[in-house]
Amino acid sequence: MQAVELPHAYRLINHGPTVLVGSAHAGRVNVMAAAWAMPLDFDTPKVAVVVDKATLTRQLIDASGVLSLNVPCVAQAALTRAVGGESGLEHPDKLARCGVEWSTGALTSAPLVQGCIAQMECRVLPATAYVAGPHDLILAEVLAAWADPQVFANGRWQFERAAPALRSLHHVAGGHFYAIGEVIAPA
Amino acid sequence: MQAVELPHAYRLINHGPTVLVGSAHAGRVNVMAAAWAMPLDFDTPKVAVVVDKATLTRQLIDASGVLSLNVPCVAQAALTRAVGGESGLEHPDKLARCGVEWSTGALTSAPLVQGCIAQMECRVLPATAYVAGPHDLILAEVLAAWADPQVFANGRWQFERAAPALRSLHHVAGGHFYAIGEVIAPA
Repeated sequence: MQAVELPHAYRLINHGPTVLVGSAHAGRVNVMAAAWAMPLDFDTPKVAVVVDKATLTRQLIDASGVLSLNVPCVAQAALTRAVGGESGLEHPDKLARCGVEWSTGALTSAPLVQGCIAQMECRVLPATAYVAGPHDLILAEVLAAWADPQVFANGRWQFERAAPALRSLHHVAGGHFYAIGEVIAPA
Repeated sequence: MQAVELPHAYRLINHGPTVLVGSAHAGRVNVMAAAWAMPLDFDTPKVAVVVDKATLTRQLIDASGVLSLNVPCVAQAALTRAVGGESGLEHPDKLARCGVEWSTGALTSAPLVQGCIAQMECRVLPATAYVAGPHDLILAEVLAAWADPQVFANGRWQFERAAPALRSLHHVAGGHFYAIGEVIAPA
């Protein structure tokens, strides 16, 4: 993985991929899939993500004030379905069951999921409790970001230069995704 | 266009497409492109979208309390770049200049952009001024939704059954998009 300059971090999710949300607190670590994530600001980079209050992920984020966002690729479609379909509350060994391997983020201790094509360490914005209100919305600042140089180079995605298995996933419904597709460039 | 049942409306942007945000107030009508939009809730369906406070779109939304979200397709890439690159504040005739044709939403009077593969009429949530805080975030309820039955049927996108020109656009940077790509289905 290669570091991404912070002003370019928003581009990692600008095209709308499904993400894996990583969380950790007091020795517990979890990863879930979320289709509802988007950039919120450029520089300082911020993101918005919807995480249901009924999830272990939300408990760990609320307790720790940090999270990771990871962009999974086509090669990880089964893993993404698995962590999207199973609860860490029901299965304390969820990550082993789902085959998730991770490293621990140096800034946040949130899990950075191995095999993903992008990873971000994020800190929940102080206003979030306030902002979320009745919604399950989390706003966070991106502290550091990395991407796989096979598909992200010179500050942008370049999926067309790499294997189809490295393309991002975009959730339709019921575990069906689309991979990101062809370049549509200005004439 | 065919009506989409409200509990399925979130699926229109679940896969992360760039959208066109329509707005209207006191005889002024505008459309801009936005990559930062996502579902916020299923049923009642709600959406979140980032609209810069410096835009005419934001002025019109703040004044009217309503907006439309439209999902443009590959055939509209040039139009999407045009409405994303030009300001309605500078060019009162922006929509004519950009070749945008629209119908007027029956529930909101916001413009529904012709040629788009999905359209939604939305009402800004009462909490938004509160929620947005220092951010440019708008939260809105979806009142009604439509999609092109060539590509959205039985409550889900079915891009693989139609012409490539009807695929959604996903913004990378600088007017470069990816079209949505191949199906990645469970085994």
